[in-house]
Amino acid sequence: MNFLEERIVKDGIIKPGNVLKVDSFLNHQMDIDLLEEIGREFKRRFAGKNINKVMTIEASGIGIAAFVAREFHVPMVFAKKSKSINIEGEMYVAEVESFTHKNKNQVIVSKKFLGPGDHVLIIDDFLANGCALQGLVSIAESSGATVEGLGIVIEKGFQIGGKVIRNLGYQLESLAIVDAMDPDAGTVTFRPQ
Amino acid sequence: MNFLEERIVKDGIIKPGNVLKVDSFLNHQMDIDLLEEIGREFKRRFAGKNINKVMTIEASGIGIAAFVAREFHVPMVFAKKSKSINIEGEMYVAEVESFTHKNKNQVIVSKKFLGPGDHVLIIDDFLANGCALQGLVSIAESSGATVEGLGIVIEKGFQIGGKVIRNLGYQLESLAIVDAMDPDAGTVTFRPQ
Repeated sequence: MNFLEERIVKDGIIKPGNVLKVDSFLNHQMDIDLLEEIGREFKRRFAGKNINKVMTIEASGIGIAAFVAREFHVPMVFAKKSKSINIEGEMYVAEVESFTHKNKNQVIVSKKFLGPGDHVLIIDDFLANGCALQGLVSIAESSGATVEGLGIVIEKGFQIGGKVIRNLGYQLESLAIVDAMDPDAGTVTFRPQ
Repeated sequence: MNFLEERIVKDGIIKPGNVLKVDSFLNHQMDIDLLEEIGREFKRRFAGKNINKVMTIEASGIGIAAFVAREFHVPMVFAKKSKSINIEGEMYVAEVESFTHKNKNQVIVSKKFLGPGDHVLIIDDFLANGCALQGLVSIAESSGATVEGLGIVIEKGFQIGGKVIRNLGYQLESLAIVDAMDPDAGTVTFRPQ
Protein backbone atom coordinates (compact mmCIF):
# COMPACT_ATOMS: atom_id res chain seq x y z
CA MET A 1 0.00 0.00 0.00
CA ASN A 2 1.18 3.52 -0.71
CA PHE A 3 0.92 6.41 1.78
CA LEU A 4 -2.57 7.39 0.65
CA GLU A 5 -3.99 3.87 0.72
CA GLU A 6 -2.57 3.49 4.23
CA ARG A 7 -4.25 6.72 5.30
CA ILE A 8 -7.58 5.63 3.82
CA VAL A 9 -7.39 2.36 5.74
CA LYS A 10 -6.50 4.22 8.93
CA ASP A 11 -8.92 7.18 8.82
CA GLY A 12 -11.44 6.61 6.02
CA ILE A 13 -14.97 5.67 7.00
CA ILE A 14 -16.98 3.28 4.85
CA LYS A 15 -20.73 3.79 4.74
CA PRO A 16 -23.43 1.80 2.99
CA GLY A 17 -24.04 2.71 -0.65
CA ASN A 18 -20.36 2.77 -1.61
CA VAL A 19 -19.71 5.96 0.33
CA LEU A 20 -16.12 6.52 1.44
CA LYS A 21 -15.74 9.40 3.86
CA VAL A 22 -12.31 11.01 3.99
CA ASP A 23 -13.45 14.29 5.48
CA SER A 24 -11.08 14.07 8.44
CA PHE A 25 -8.01 14.52 6.23
CA LEU A 26 -8.91 15.38 2.63
CA ASN A 27 -12.12 17.24 1.85
CA HIS A 28 -13.42 19.05 4.92
CA GLN A 29 -10.54 18.99 7.37
CA MET A 30 -7.27 18.91 5.42
CA ASP A 31 -4.01 17.38 6.60
CA ILE A 32 -1.42 19.74 5.12
CA ASP A 33 1.47 17.26 5.38
CA LEU A 34 -0.62 14.82 3.36
CA LEU A 35 -1.38 17.48 0.74
CA GLU A 36 2.34 18.12 0.38
CA GLU A 37 3.00 14.41 -0.04
CA ILE A 38 0.25 14.21 -2.67
CA GLY A 39 1.87 17.14 -4.48
CA ARG A 40 5.24 15.38 -4.52
CA GLU A 41 3.73 12.12 -5.75
CA PHE A 42 1.97 13.79 -8.71
CA LYS A 43 5.22 15.61 -9.54
CA ARG A 44 6.90 12.19 -9.67
CA ARG A 45 4.18 10.61 -11.81
CA PHE A 46 4.12 13.46 -14.34
CA ALA A 47 7.83 14.22 -14.16
CA GLY A 48 8.41 13.92 -17.91
CA LYS A 49 5.63 16.34 -18.83
CA ASN A 50 6.07 19.98 -19.71
CA ILE A 51 3.36 21.39 -17.43
CA ASN A 52 2.86 25.15 -17.08
CA LYS A 53 -0.53 25.22 -15.35
CA VAL A 54 -2.49 23.16 -12.86
CA MET A 55 -6.26 23.20 -13.15
CA THR A 56 -8.98 22.02 -10.78
CA ILE A 57 -12.57 22.73 -9.81
CA GLU A 58 -13.93 24.26 -6.63
CA ALA A 59 -14.13 23.50 -3.80
CA SER A 60 -12.22 20.52 -2.41
CA GLY A 61 -9.84 20.27 -5.37
CA ILE A 62 -8.34 23.67 -4.58
CA GLY A 63 -6.16 22.73 -1.62
CA ILE A 64 -4.77 19.67 -3.37
CA ALA A 65 -4.14 21.44 -6.68
CA ALA A 66 -2.37 24.29 -4.90
CA PHE A 67 0.24 21.89 -3.50
CA VAL A 68 0.64 20.16 -6.86
CA ALA A 69 1.18 23.56 -8.50
CA ARG A 70 3.75 24.35 -5.82
CA GLU A 71 5.77 21.26 -6.81
CA PHE A 72 5.71 22.22 -10.50
CA HIS A 73 6.25 25.89 -9.61
CA VAL A 74 3.40 26.99 -11.90
CA PRO A 75 0.10 28.88 -11.34
CA MET A 76 -3.12 27.07 -10.50
CA VAL A 77 -6.54 27.89 -11.96
CA PHE A 78 -9.74 26.64 -10.43
CA ALA A 79 -12.95 26.34 -12.42
CA LYS A 80 -16.09 27.67 -10.83
CA LYS A 81 -19.47 26.01 -10.68
CA SER A 82 -22.14 28.35 -11.90
CA LYS A 83 -25.90 28.16 -12.22
CA SER A 84 -26.25 31.02 -14.67
CA ILE A 85 -24.02 32.83 -17.10
CA ASN A 86 -24.09 36.55 -17.61
CA ILE A 87 -20.43 36.56 -18.52
CA GLU A 88 -20.82 34.99 -21.94
CA GLY A 89 -17.87 35.62 -24.21
CA GLU A 90 -15.31 36.08 -21.47
CA MET A 91 -15.57 32.53 -20.19
CA TYR A 92 -15.04 28.99 -21.36
CA VAL A 93 -18.16 27.10 -20.34
CA ALA A 94 -18.86 23.40 -20.07
CA GLU A 95 -22.38 22.12 -19.52
CA VAL A 96 -22.05 19.18 -17.22
CA GLU A 97 -24.87 16.74 -16.76
CA SER A 98 -24.76 14.77 -13.55
CA PHE A 99 -25.21 11.01 -13.97
CA THR A 100 -26.40 10.77 -10.41
CA HIS A 101 -28.60 13.81 -9.94
CA LYS A 102 -29.88 14.23 -13.51
CA ASN A 103 -29.40 17.98 -13.27
CA LYS A 104 -27.12 20.24 -15.30
CA ASN A 105 -24.42 22.50 -14.03
CA GLN A 106 -22.10 24.92 -15.69
CA VAL A 107 -18.38 24.89 -15.14
CA ILE A 108 -16.58 28.08 -16.11
CA VAL A 109 -13.03 29.35 -16.52
CA SER A 110 -12.05 32.83 -17.61
CA LYS A 111 -10.52 33.02 -21.08
CA LYS A 112 -7.76 35.17 -19.60
CA PHE A 113 -6.24 32.20 -17.82
CA LEU A 114 -6.24 29.38 -20.35
CA GLY A 115 -5.24 29.24 -24.01
CA PRO A 116 -3.35 27.47 -26.81
CA GLY A 117 0.04 27.95 -25.16
CA ASP A 118 -0.94 26.10 -22.02
CA HIS A 119 0.07 22.58 -20.99
CA VAL A 120 -2.33 21.63 -18.27
CA LEU A 121 -2.36 19.08 -15.47
CA ILE A 122 -5.92 18.57 -14.22
CA ILE A 123 -6.28 17.65 -10.54
CA ASP A 124 -9.25 16.61 -8.41
CA ASP A 125 -9.90 14.83 -5.14
CA PHE A 126 -12.45 12.22 -6.26
CA LEU A 127 -13.31 10.47 -9.51
CA ALA A 128 -16.52 8.44 -9.68
CA ASN A 129 -18.70 9.02 -12.74
CA GLY A 130 -16.40 11.84 -13.76
CA CYS A 131 -18.92 14.49 -14.77
CA ALA A 132 -16.97 17.41 -13.38
CA LEU A 133 -13.69 16.04 -14.73
CA GLN A 134 -15.15 15.70 -18.23
CA GLY A 135 -16.17 19.35 -17.96
CA LEU A 136 -12.61 20.34 -17.09
CA VAL A 137 -11.22 18.36 -20.03
CA SER A 138 -13.77 19.95 -22.34
CA ILE A 139 -12.82 23.45 -21.18
CA ALA A 140 -9.09 22.81 -21.52
CA GLU A 141 -9.48 21.32 -25.00
CA SER A 142 -11.80 24.07 -26.21
CA SER A 143 -9.28 26.69 -25.07
CA GLY A 144 -6.67 25.09 -27.32
CA ALA A 145 -4.55 24.04 -24.35
CA THR A 146 -2.89 20.63 -24.21
CA VAL A 147 -4.07 18.29 -21.45
CA GLU A 148 -0.82 16.69 -20.30
CA GLY A 149 -2.52 14.47 -17.79
CA LEU A 150 -5.05 14.09 -14.99
CA GLY A 151 -4.26 13.39 -11.37
CA ILE A 152 -6.91 12.07 -8.99
CA VAL A 153 -6.46 11.38 -5.31
CA ILE A 154 -9.15 8.68 -4.95
CA GLU A 155 -10.78 6.92 -7.89
CA LYS A 156 -13.81 4.70 -7.44
CA GLY A 157 -12.71 1.99 -9.82
CA PHE A 158 -16.12 0.38 -9.95
CA GLN A 159 -17.66 3.50 -11.49
CA ILE A 160 -17.35 4.66 -15.06
CA GLY A 161 -15.32 7.88 -14.82
CA GLY A 162 -11.80 6.45 -14.93
CA LYS A 163 -12.55 4.16 -17.89
CA VAL A 164 -13.97 7.04 -19.93
CA ILE A 165 -10.91 9.24 -19.43
CA ARG A 166 -8.44 6.40 -20.15
CA ASN A 167 -10.42 5.35 -23.25
CA LEU A 168 -10.07 8.92 -24.51
CA GLY A 169 -6.31 8.40 -24.41
CA TYR A 170 -5.36 10.62 -21.50
CA GLN A 171 -2.77 9.74 -18.88
CA LEU A 172 -4.86 9.41 -15.75
CA GLU A 173 -3.04 8.79 -12.49
CA SER A 174 -5.08 7.96 -9.40
CA LEU A 175 -3.17 7.64 -6.15
CA ALA A 176 -5.69 5.15 -4.82
CA ILE A 177 -8.17 3.15 -6.90
CA VAL A 178 -10.90 1.64 -4.78
CA ASP A 179 -12.29 -1.48 -6.46
CA ALA A 180 -14.61 -2.52 -3.66
CA MET A 181 -15.79 -1.51 -0.21
CA ASP A 182 -17.43 -3.59 2.47
CA PRO A 183 -19.28 -1.42 4.99
CA ASP A 184 -19.96 -4.35 7.34
CA ALA A 185 -16.37 -5.52 7.56
CA GLY A 186 -15.08 -1.96 7.20
CA THR A 187 -12.65 -3.01 4.50
CA VAL A 188 -11.48 -1.42 1.26
CA THR A 189 -10.04 -3.32 -1.70
CA PHE A 190 -7.50 -1.32 -3.70
CA ARG A 191 -6.53 -2.06 -7.29
CA PRO A 192 -2.85 -3.07 -7.42
CA GLN A 193 -0.80 -0.39 -9.23
CA MET B 1 3.51 49.45 0.36
CA ASN B 2 3.81 45.81 1.35
CA PHE B 3 4.13 42.92 -1.11
CA LEU B 4 0.38 42.47 -1.44
CA GLU B 5 -0.41 46.15 -1.95
CA GLU B 6 2.29 46.24 -4.63
CA ARG B 7 0.72 43.25 -6.36
CA ILE B 8 -2.75 44.82 -6.25
CA VAL B 9 -1.38 48.00 -7.84
CA LYS B 10 0.40 45.93 -10.50
CA ASP B 11 -2.27 43.33 -11.40
CA GLY B 12 -5.56 44.32 -9.75
CA ILE B 13 -8.29 45.71 -11.97
CA ILE B 14 -10.62 48.41 -10.68
CA LYS B 15 -14.15 48.43 -12.01
CA PRO B 16 -17.04 50.82 -11.39
CA GLY B 17 -19.10 50.09 -8.28
CA ASN B 18 -16.10 49.54 -6.00
CA VAL B 19 -15.21 46.25 -7.64
CA LEU B 20 -11.59 45.17 -7.30
CA LYS B 21 -10.72 42.20 -9.48
CA VAL B 22 -7.75 40.13 -8.34
CA ASP B 23 -8.67 37.00 -10.25
CA SER B 24 -5.35 36.81 -12.08
CA PHE B 25 -3.44 36.00 -8.88
CA LEU B 26 -5.76 35.37 -5.92
CA ASN B 27 -9.24 33.99 -6.47
CA HIS B 28 -9.51 32.30 -9.86
CA GLN B 29 -5.93 31.89 -11.02
CA MET B 30 -3.69 31.58 -7.97
CA ASP B 31 -0.04 32.61 -7.76
CA ILE B 32 1.44 29.96 -5.48
CA ASP B 33 4.51 32.00 -4.54
CA LEU B 34 2.16 34.76 -3.42
CA LEU B 35 0.10 32.30 -1.36
CA GLU B 36 3.29 31.16 0.36
CA GLU B 37 4.25 34.76 1.12
CA ILE B 38 0.75 35.41 2.50
CA GLY B 39 1.13 32.33 4.70
CA ARG B 40 4.44 33.60 6.08
CA GLU B 41 3.03 37.08 6.74
CA PHE B 42 0.07 35.74 8.75
CA LYS B 43 2.48 33.53 10.70
CA ARG B 44 4.43 36.67 11.57
CA ARG B 45 1.35 38.67 12.56
CA PHE B 46 -0.06 35.92 14.78
CA ALA B 47 3.30 34.65 16.01
CA GLY B 48 2.43 34.96 19.71
CA LYS B 49 -0.78 32.99 19.43
CA ASN B 50 -1.24 29.36 20.30
CA ILE B 51 -3.03 28.26 17.12
CA ASN B 52 -3.89 24.60 16.51
CA LYS B 53 -6.33 24.95 13.61
CA VAL B 54 -6.89 27.21 10.63
CA MET B 55 -10.46 27.70 9.46
CA THR B 56 -11.88 29.18 6.28
CA ILE B 57 -14.89 28.97 3.98
CA GLU B 58 -15.13 27.56 0.49
CA ALA B 59 -14.12 28.25 -2.18
CA SER B 60 -11.44 30.90 -2.66
CA GLY B 61 -10.34 30.89 0.98
CA ILE B 62 -9.14 27.30 0.74
CA GLY B 63 -5.89 27.85 -1.15
CA ILE B 64 -4.87 30.72 1.09
CA ALA B 65 -5.80 28.98 4.33
CA ALA B 66 -3.89 25.86 3.28
CA PHE B 67 -0.64 27.82 3.06
CA VAL B 68 -1.32 29.58 6.36
CA ALA B 69 -1.93 26.18 7.98
CA ARG B 70 1.34 24.97 6.46
CA GLU B 71 3.24 27.78 8.25
CA PHE B 72 1.64 26.94 11.60
CA HIS B 73 1.95 23.21 10.88
CA VAL B 74 -1.68 22.56 11.86
CA PRO B 75 -4.73 21.16 10.05
CA MET B 76 -7.11 23.37 8.10
CA VAL B 77 -10.90 23.06 8.12
CA PHE B 78 -13.08 24.70 5.53
CA ALA B 79 -16.73 25.51 6.15
CA LYS B 80 -19.19 24.59 3.46
CA LYS B 81 -21.98 26.68 2.08
CA SER B 82 -25.23 24.79 2.10
CA LYS B 83 -28.76 25.46 0.98
CA SER B 84 -30.39 22.73 3.00
CA ILE B 85 -29.56 20.71 6.06
CA ASN B 86 -30.29 17.05 6.40
CA ILE B 87 -27.30 16.59 8.62
CA GLU B 88 -28.75 18.28 11.68
CA GLY B 89 -27.02 17.31 14.89
CA GLU B 90 -23.69 16.44 13.32
CA MET B 91 -22.94 19.95 12.15
CA TYR B 92 -22.42 23.41 13.53
CA VAL B 93 -24.63 25.69 11.47
CA ALA B 94 -24.65 29.45 11.07
CA GLU B 95 -27.48 31.16 9.24
CA VAL B 96 -25.87 33.99 7.35
CA GLU B 97 -27.95 36.79 5.92
CA SER B 98 -26.38 38.64 3.04
CA PHE B 99 -26.44 42.45 3.36
CA THR B 100 -26.16 42.76 -0.39
CA HIS B 101 -28.41 40.05 -1.73
CA LYS B 102 -30.99 39.88 1.09
CA ASN B 103 -30.96 36.10 0.93
CA LYS B 104 -29.96 33.60 3.60
CA ASN B 105 -27.30 30.94 3.37
CA GLN B 106 -26.15 28.29 5.73
CA VAL B 107 -22.53 27.78 6.63
CA ILE B 108 -21.70 24.40 8.12
CA VAL B 109 -18.79 22.64 9.82
CA SER B 110 -18.79 19.08 11.10
CA LYS B 111 -18.74 18.78 14.89
CA LYS B 112 -15.95 16.24 14.49
CA PHE B 113 -13.46 18.92 13.52
CA LEU B 114 -14.04 21.79 15.95
CA GLY B 115 -14.50 21.87 19.70
CA PRO B 116 -13.60 23.43 23.06
CA GLY B 117 -9.94 22.44 22.82
CA ASP B 118 -9.37 24.34 19.59
CA HIS B 119 -7.56 27.65 19.13
CA VAL B 120 -8.59 28.86 15.74
CA LEU B 121 -7.20 31.30 13.21
CA ILE B 122 -9.91 32.26 10.71
CA ILE B 123 -8.69 33.12 7.19
CA ASP B 124 -10.46 34.51 4.14
CA ASP B 125 -9.56 36.26 0.92
CA PHE B 126 -11.95 39.24 1.05
CA LEU B 127 -13.74 41.16 3.77
CA ALA B 128 -16.46 43.62 2.78
CA ASN B 129 -19.70 43.42 4.73
CA GLY B 130 -18.40 40.37 6.48
CA CYS B 131 -21.45 38.11 6.37
CA ALA B 132 -19.52 34.91 5.75
CA LEU B 133 -16.86 35.85 8.28
CA GLN B 134 -19.48 36.48 10.97
CA GLY B 135 -20.81 33.01 10.23
CA LEU B 136 -17.36 31.51 10.77
CA VAL B 137 -16.95 33.37 14.07
CA SER B 138 -20.38 32.20 15.17
CA ILE B 139 -19.55 28.58 14.36
CA ALA B 140 -16.19 28.71 16.12
CA GLU B 141 -17.66 30.33 19.24
CA SER B 142 -20.61 27.96 19.37
CA SER B 143 -18.24 24.99 19.21
CA GLY B 144 -16.49 26.26 22.34
CA ALA B 145 -13.28 26.94 20.43
CA THR B 146 -11.23 30.08 21.02
CA VAL B 147 -10.94 32.48 18.11
CA GLU B 148 -7.30 33.58 18.33
CA GLY B 149 -7.59 35.94 15.41
CA LEU B 150 -8.78 36.59 11.89
CA GLY B 151 -6.59 37.08 8.85
CA ILE B 152 -7.90 38.69 5.69
CA VAL B 153 -6.00 39.21 2.48
CA ILE B 154 -7.95 42.24 1.19
CA GLU B 155 -10.32 44.29 3.33
CA LYS B 156 -12.61 46.88 1.82
CA GLY B 157 -12.14 49.49 4.53
CA PHE B 158 -15.09 51.55 3.38
CA GLN B 159 -17.53 48.73 4.14
CA ILE B 160 -18.77 47.64 7.52
CA GLY B 161 -17.24 44.15 7.98
CA GLY B 162 -13.88 45.08 9.49
CA LYS B 163 -15.39 47.53 11.99
CA VAL B 164 -17.86 44.92 13.24
CA ILE B 165 -15.17 42.31 13.88
CA ARG B 166 -12.79 44.80 15.57
CA ASN B 167 -15.65 46.20 17.72
CA LEU B 168 -16.29 42.65 18.91
CA GLY B 169 -12.75 42.66 20.26
CA TYR B 170 -11.07 40.23 17.89
CA GLN B 171 -7.57 40.68 16.47
CA LEU B 172 -8.25 41.22 12.79
CA GLU B 173 -5.25 41.50 10.49
CA SER B 174 -5.82 42.52 6.89
CA LEU B 175 -2.80 42.47 4.62
CA ALA B 176 -4.25 45.27 2.49
CA ILE B 177 -7.03 47.63 3.54
CA VAL B 178 -8.51 49.44 0.57
CA ASP B 179 -9.99 52.77 1.69
CA ALA B 180 -10.91 54.05 -1.75
CA MET B 181 -10.82 53.11 -5.42
CA ASP B 182 -11.00 55.35 -8.47
CA PRO B 183 -12.03 53.38 -11.56
CA ASP B 184 -11.37 56.32 -13.92
CA ALA B 185 -7.84 56.97 -12.72
CA GLY B 186 -7.29 53.27 -11.98
CA THR B 187 -5.93 54.06 -8.52
CA VAL B 188 -6.33 52.40 -5.13
CA THR B 189 -5.87 54.17 -1.80
CA PHE B 190 -4.57 51.88 0.95
CA ARG B 191 -4.96 52.57 4.66
CA PRO B 192 -1.51 53.07 6.21
CA GLN B 193 -0.65 50.19 8.57
